[in-house]
Amino acid sequence: MLTKAENDRLTRVGAGTPMGETMRRYWLPALLSWELPEPDGAPVRVRLLGEDLVAFRATDGQVGMLDEFCPHRRASLWLGRNEENGLRCVYHGWKYDVTGRCVEQMNEPRPFCDKIRVTAYPTCELGGIVWTYMGPPEKRPPVPQFEWTQLPESHRTVSKVVQACNWLQALEGGIDTSHFTIMHRALKLNPLQRGTEVDGPGVRGGAPTLEVDITDYGYRYFGIRPQPDGSRYVRGYHFVMPFTQLRPLRPNKDQTHGHYWVPIDDETCMVWNFYSSHDPEPIGERSADSGNGYGSHVDVRNGFRPIRNRTNDWMIDRQMQKTETFTGIDGINQQDRAVQESMGPIVDRTREVLGPADRAIVATRRLLLEAVDTVARGGDPRGTGSSYYELRAGEAVLSTAVDWRRTLMPVMYPQTGGAAPADLSLRAKVYEEAGN
Amino acid sequence: MLTKAENDRLTRVGAGTPMGETMRRYWLPALLSWELPEPDGAPVRVRLLGEDLVAFRATDGQVGMLDEFCPHRRASLWLGRNEENGLRCVYHGWKYDVTGRCVEQMNEPRPFCDKIRVTAYPTCELGGIVWTYMGPPEKRPPVPQFEWTQLPESHRTVSKVVQACNWLQALEGGIDTSHFTIMHRALKLNPLQRGTEVDGPGVRGGAPTLEVDITDYGYRYFGIRPQPDGSRYVRGYHFVMPFTQLRPLRPNKDQTHGHYWVPIDDETCMVWNFYSSHDPEPIGERSADSGNGYGSHVDVRNGFRPIRNRTNDWMIDRQMQKTETFTGIDGINQQDRAVQESMGPIVDRTREVLGPADRAIVATRRLLLEAVDTVARGGDPRGTGSSYYELRAGEAVLSTAVDWRRTLMPVMYPQTGGAAPADLSLRAKVYEEAGN
Amino acid sequence: MLTKAENDRLTRVGAGTPMGETMRRYWLPALLSWELPEPDGAPVRVRLLGEDLVAFRATDGQVGMLDEFCPHRRASLWLGRNEENGLRCVYHGWKYDVTGRCVEQMNEPRPFCDKIRVTAYPTCELGGIVWTYMGPPEKRPPVPQFEWTQLPESHRTVSKVVQACNWLQALEGGIDTSHFTIMHRALKLNPLQRGTEVDGPGVRGGAPTLEVDITDYGYRYFGIRPQPDGSRYVRGYHFVMPFTQLRPLRPNKDQTHGHYWVPIDDETCMVWNFYSSHDPEPIGERSADSGNGYGSHVDVRNGFRPIRNRTNDWMIDRQMQKTETFTGIDGINQQDRAVQESMGPIVDRTREVLGPADRAIVATRRLLLEAVDTVARGGDPRGTGSSYYELRAGEAVLSTAVDWRRTLMPVMYPQTGGAAPADLSLRAKVYEEAGN
Repeated sequence: MLTKAENDRLTRVGAGTPMGETMRRYWLPALLSWELPEPDGAPVRVRLLGEDLVAFRATDGQVGMLDEFCPHRRASLWLGRNEENGLRCVYHGWKYDVTGRCVEQMNEPRPFCDKIRVTAYPTCELGGIVWTYMGPPEKRPPVPQFEWTQLPESHRTVSKVVQACNWLQALEGGIDTSHFTIMHRALKLNPLQRGTEVDGPGVRGGAPTLEVDITDYGYRYFGIRPQPDGSRYVRGYHFVMPFTQLRPLRPNKDQTHGHYWVPIDDETCMVWNFYSSHDPEPIGERSADSGNGYGSHVDVRNGFRPIRNRTNDWMIDRQMQKTETFTGIDGINQQDRAVQESMGPIVDRTREVLGPADRAIVATRRLLLEAVDTVARGGDPRGTGSSYYELRAGEAVLSTAVDWRRTLMPVMYPQTGGAAPADLSLRAKVYEEAGN
Repeated sequence: MLTKAENDRLTRVGAGTPMGETMRRYWLPALLSWELPEPDGAPVRVRLLGEDLVAFRATDGQVGMLDEFCPHRRASLWLGRNEENGLRCVYHGWKYDVTGRCVEQMNEPRPFCDKIRVTAYPTCELGGIVWTYMGPPEKRPPVPQFEWTQLPESHRTVSKVVQACNWLQALEGGIDTSHFTIMHRALKLNPLQRGTEVDGPGVRGGAPTLEVDITDYGYRYFGIRPQPDGSRYVRGYHFVMPFTQLRPLRPNKDQTHGHYWVPIDDETCMVWNFYSSHDPEPIGERSADSGNGYGSHVDVRNGFRPIRNRTNDWMIDRQMQKTETFTGIDGINQQDRAVQESMGPIVDRTREVLGPADRAIVATRRLLLEAVDTVARGGDPRGTGSSYYELRAGEAVLSTAVDWRRTLMPVMYPQTGGAAPADLSLRAKVYEEAGN
Repeated sequence: MLTKAENDRLTRVGAGTPMGETMRRYWLPALLSWELPEPDGAPVRVRLLGEDLVAFRATDGQVGMLDEFCPHRRASLWLGRNEENGLRCVYHGWKYDVTGRCVEQMNEPRPFCDKIRVTAYPTCELGGIVWTYMGPPEKRPPVPQFEWTQLPESHRTVSKVVQACNWLQALEGGIDTSHFTIMHRALKLNPLQRGTEVDGPGVRGGAPTLEVDITDYGYRYFGIRPQPDGSRYVRGYHFVMPFTQLRPLRPNKDQTHGHYWVPIDDETCMVWNFYSSHDPEPIGERSADSGNGYGSHVDVRNGFRPIRNRTNDWMIDRQMQKTETFTGIDGINQQDRAVQESMGPIVDRTREVLGPADRAIVATRRLLLEAVDTVARGGDPRGTGSSYYELRAGEAVLSTAVDWRRTLMPVMYPQTGGAAPADLSLRAKVYEEAGN
């Protein structure tokens, strides 16, 4: 449970808000690279942290990310012409390069270009994503080189979808491992049922014990479920500040999947899904859900809006809910989105009751509030270094005789083995707050 | 005319508002019983007095009426599973019975159910309606046993439709008898014209004199219209606090029809229509307008929204208005709704001019404001007793030699004959306020 | 650049706002005459300066312009019956004549009509337009007898379209001559390309020098573009307070076209387009864009809303933008509207940068703010006289040896030759503010 002030502090991301300023200290996924397929192609609208931007790929391939509105009379540059290394406003022909400099003014007999600039944010491309950084130039962190972005294209894929609620409740739904074997369960095995996770051989769902270790990039956490044969089923995740989750696919599959929950504005977010495989075989089977091939879930041409949404009750099927799946909604990600959107645009956290199964939720809020304080004091918040570059997720079914940390840590930290110590005092506070 | 403060006081119904607290002292129609046809069926959303609720019929047939949002993390319980005598949240499997007690928490290794409750309101079923009571438990009045609800199913029927304006202007339009023979008139007899009242044999419309008698449940009122043959046409109605009207069908038909105008929120209400016959023959002819058979007026599957509405100008037909009906809008209830919605979401009562023909309007406001004061002082407002149980409407065409009260009172109070005296001093105030 | 207070002062037009009170000192175009084709026909909704009105043509042909809501209980008079020289509310049959007097109350046995009035504004018809005046009766200016309205019907035509932004940014886009040869240019000649202006024979576009002369009705202004052959291409316009522009068609065509940008409310305006010819031949070729024949640009039956609008990105065609026209949007007026709407409902003028090419913009704001001050002091603002009655637009390509004012003034002031002197001190301020 939070106070109203804390809830506002955590959820609002406009320029000048505490969380808004904190978010602006990180690189943000802005576009799929294929949305800007060619130099001098059509510009694309981007809305991030409540700001309206326009992106374009210049003649030299670089991506410009400008304020949407021309500084002259504020016509939308989205209507603009993407010409020889610059975006030109169609109203009076003022033209801007990727750094925001004005390089031409067609309507003035004696131009004064050198006095004109449009806000421009730096960009980089990694993992098929155009990232941008909207914060103070002198605070720009190293580029967001997540391990999965370094794999060959055949071993990674990425997609996105708009979600009609605040970013934090989407994030909290994603890092919440305790719902995993409840909400997403199948009531009976149905080989034609797409997107429904079923208990694997020898793996049983149910209420997990949750362990959370605070780190310099965020935290790692583990859901531990006792199995009928006396073994333990342990899932190991990472949370990287401020909105990233890495998660395992399933036991015996060396894959790291994950999400970025990126604020479009206070009441809308973009959910990014990535899939990567560390195994020799390619990731191909997920491609139907990514890139141009979203199938029937996402209306890609209509701004990546989901087909199932609040206006159609997420196409819930009450008969299916009776007999086949717990929710009656088709697709894991669709189930998550339905439940998170059902809470309303910004959930009222003054009226919730958390328990020990919500430790990851509590840890996230604690770290985000800490980051806001750090930024306000002029410091660098967690996750702005590069320690998260090596991270992978891990999962195993292990006998109680085995120390599962010894098994999972080398998988989850392939380079350092997780050498840096966890922050035990902060962890103690989180445990206390969530209840024991 | 009201002050702005009075208008706000009368129209706003959210929790904590004066009228909201007053409304919460009465049983409210919430659903048609057939919307919850079977035990363990799909839950249904209900919005009442600005609160979002979810209703479900439990295994034993009882109807639960819960706050829509799970107290844990506030997922919508409308997405929930209606299982063995309880509604289960699909997010983490917390389950609630009809009294709001938490009986299971699937995600916690050591559950703490006894600490968790969801807001639950009591319900009852009468006359094919699920009623609920949202006020303080110790103030719960006797169940709303209107006489028509006690008739056999063959002799009563009920329907509902959403109206896009505040409940009070819908109510004021309904209890306003003076518009009856004006707005709803036919310009010429057209046997194919559905829903248009025409003057009956020997009955002439026109400006009525209005008499209002204040009672302990609200008031009865009479519209008296002189007829060409020297007789008087008298229609006798009841208003039962806070939003009920009983009205006669037409002379020589012993039927009581009526409405409940129930606030969904400040700018929307549900208009309930009931029809009942005290004659031996059944009510059958109205069934096309009720239950599942709404015909072409109401989009039942789309939340009982009306087909004719503000967005399509209520499908007004100007040619029909020229030659056939006064409004050019098809159907009595549709004409009422059009005019009431045309005033805007909440009519500005600081800018109206009332006259003697508006006495019923004035009486209603007077009684509602009195009720608000009574509740604020801790008392029980009018209409929370059971004196309204016996009421019927009545109507007659009578010679001036006859005392019409002697004729109508036994019809309108079949058990007591209206023994309880009317409040004459309050009546005098109402008459003065409306002008004489 | 303006302060926020200045921007609010200029753009807000509701009753009681400074600009609202100023606007109410002028005659306003309200309807096309053909929207009220016959006496006793259907009434029509009008929204002007944020007020909801209803217009009707009475039995004698006069147009009434009333407040939309009946003073009795505030039902919409748009639902009313247009009967023998009056509009009757369908609710209780109260009837009003074109002056707003109540002449009947059907529901009251003893009517009190003499105590009831509905707000009514005077109207006149000129040039196929119904005009209305919403200000204080004692301040009513002479009727808006623009010269084009005095031509025979064959030589003038008028149309209108709703624009989804504040009136002032539409006006500023219209009086801005510097975008004319930029935004509206064709990239290559395409005889099938509708609505695209191309450079005429010997006429070159490009950055103009702008001269502005302040007058007692507003200002005249000239865009002067040097031509490759050493001549000058001069376009002469008028701006008539508070929202009128007269513009030339093209050299050697003696036509005056123009616009009224009339506030519907703060975030919507009606753009009126008129075309008139002083040549002997009729104006016929424009008729496809006017009257009932709007072609594919305007949804006349849906309140004159444009087909191309923000929700469909003005149907921009990026391929056409690459190769055929500067904007990729079909039609001159559509290009203007797209750019103006792209700025948002009310452009943020605290964040713009103006230059010498924006002198007409600066002059307009200066005059509008002056008018607001004049009205606040009880005076009569510019443009409430009749000196604008004679105005025409003019245009010529002239040798530098010729004084272009000598050529254009007699064309632009066919009666007086522009005898009244321009206000040079105010002009100097405008030039300074726009930069030199």
